[in-house]
Amino acid sequence: MVSSKAVFLERFGLRVPIVQAPMGGATTPAMVAAVCEAGGLGSLAAAYLSPAAIEAQLRETRRLTSRLFVVNLFVPFIDPQVAADELERALEELRPWRERLGLAPAGALPRVERFEEQIVAVLRDPPAALSFCFGLLPPAAIDQCRAAGTVTIGTATSVAEARALEESGVDMICAQGAEAGAHRGTFDARAEPSGIGTLDLVPLLVDAVRVPVLAAGGIMDGRGIRAVLSLGAVAAQLGTAFLRSPESSIPQVHKDALTLIQSTVVTRAFSGRPARGLANRFTREVLSPVSFPLQNSLTREIRQAAAARGDVEALSLWAGEGAAMARALPAFDLVRLLTRELEEAEQR
Amino acid sequence: MVSSKAVFLERFGLRVPIVQAPMGGATTPAMVAAVCEAGGLGSLAAAYLSPAAIEAQLRETRRLTSRLFVVNLFVPFIDPQVAADELERALEELRPWRERLGLAPAGALPRVERFEEQIVAVLRDPPAALSFCFGLLPPAAIDQCRAAGTVTIGTATSVAEARALEESGVDMICAQGAEAGAHRGTFDARAEPSGIGTLDLVPLLVDAVRVPVLAAGGIMDGRGIRAVLSLGAVAAQLGTAFLRSPESSIPQVHKDALTLIQSTVVTRAFSGRPARGLANRFTREVLSPVSFPLQNSLTREIRQAAAARGDVEALSLWAGEGAAMARALPAFDLVRLLTRELEEAEQR
Repeated sequence: MVSSKAVFLERFGLRVPIVQAPMGGATTPAMVAAVCEAGGLGSLAAAYLSPAAIEAQLRETRRLTSRLFVVNLFVPFIDPQVAADELERALEELRPWRERLGLAPAGALPRVERFEEQIVAVLRDPPAALSFCFGLLPPAAIDQCRAAGTVTIGTATSVAEARALEESGVDMICAQGAEAGAHRGTFDARAEPSGIGTLDLVPLLVDAVRVPVLAAGGIMDGRGIRAVLSLGAVAAQLGTAFLRSPESSIPQVHKDALTLIQSTVVTRAFSGRPARGLANRFTREVLSPVSFPLQNSLTREIRQAAAARGDVEALSLWAGEGAAMARALPAFDLVRLLTRELEEAEQR
Repeated sequence: MVSSKAVFLERFGLRVPIVQAPMGGATTPAMVAAVCEAGGLGSLAAAYLSPAAIEAQLRETRRLTSRLFVVNLFVPFIDPQVAADELERALEELRPWRERLGLAPAGALPRVERFEEQIVAVLRDPPAALSFCFGLLPPAAIDQCRAAGTVTIGTATSVAEARALEESGVDMICAQGAEAGAHRGTFDARAEPSGIGTLDLVPLLVDAVRVPVLAAGGIMDGRGIRAVLSLGAVAAQLGTAFLRSPESSIPQVHKDALTLIQSTVVTRAFSGRPARGLANRFTREVLSPVSFPLQNSLTREIRQAAAARGDVEALSLWAGEGAAMARALPAFDLVRLLTRELEEAEQR
């Protein structure tokens, strides 16, 4: 019998069942291409990009590698209904942060990219796969991907979400355990995010659905990869493990903070959706965020200014629970090292 | 090179690196003996027992098996300083629960067993190992165990706790990931319990200490056992997996609730210490517990009456995050099944 893992490797022409997780603000075409060249599967983080920027990043990635890769988007969302007093409170809470960073009072909000335009840009020259989070794709988008030969990979943090994804017609499901850094994929943005760890979520989903399951959350080295393969995952998706690579575009202060990490928190302060990272003054003091994606728009200039200044107290320091195990290696070298570690783990 | 896992198996004469977790209120001498007879390592939960009851359970276990087993205790604690108004509030909050269950108003509190007396009872005929949680053993107790040939196994939920345990002279450390059911082993009862999952905690501890690391939390079947062995653990400790066995002394309504489980919560309502279980009216409404172990004493009659009546809203429904995967099998059969599943996982 051919294993599901072998089918996955074959489908994407991989040497090793390692997927580099899409990370907005960290992933670059250089990272994606390096992972692919080393035999893994890179993922472009396109959710925050305009259609023109998506096309440019796709072109750049293809210039750097001829191997297959993934593009990641958020599902379309309905503009949140935010009451005037809620918005006022959120703006008031952010005012001292703008002052701290020398920003003018908040003006017009940046445009939120529209999924309907992004998916057109993505599928103009279809990538091998489209991964997505925060819910279900519209049936039309599933059909578009299928027609384009693009594999769809939804993100689930619970059995119920995985069942809904399978029902919607996705080809694969990424099980995102509670250890994962940055945004929780939880469908309902207002609900307490599911806190179930990768060790239980993966076998629960493997038993609940028929489509292949990828594992994400807390996987940092060959030991972790071997562990999630044991649980029945076809591949391991690693994000935080790549954050310290030279191809990662997070600020140097963020990379440095990862080496000192003791623990992480889940916060809505930066985007309005729960996301895991290091605690700082911003996560402690910003307690009245408005809904996603409005809060994300409200904090964009603050995050950009904090990154430019290296202000570690105002930055979104996304990190998974295993961040202390992240290694500062080029993405290509890291994938090769993970491959060797996995081979060693297989032999134990 | 002989692996640490092989050394562990050899040390306790095991066929398989499976430890049955000590569970107060669930573990019985019959469960411990069945696990041992099947080739695993059973653990008696002695923390809530009087010295006389400990001796009786040790005798009963030895009558049922000649194999080695573990006894578990809590570390000694200082009686909590509870202000009169705090105690008043806690009693007031519990009053309707006593009424609901037909209990007379709260009278004298049950005696809290003293570690110093329990350890004497345990070591009268020394077991193969003493495992413990909530902190460090006093140096004298470590010395007593060493003199008796009893292996000491401390419980850690973070790297800092593991380092402190190693420094204190324990022989092994059990890494308790956030998925684990019932009490978090966190040293500081007042702190937010560490939420780090088993998938990250095990490799972090394996890298941080030199003593062997056991893995606990979220391990439900052969896939999970193989996973934590991949992470570097010498053995897998399973608790929730045994909760539905006929040897488990939890009420039938608790066993039934496990099959319907959707998610778990961490609550201090029952004991004053954070512990994971199913949410019910008690966890939602009892919000002013006093410190451990006083709250545990205050709720004892309530829990006993709820168990007798099968009142699922007043019971402590301890469960790990993987409880939906627990199987209703005799403990002996479960260990044999886990052994076969592990062998299959090894061959994949």
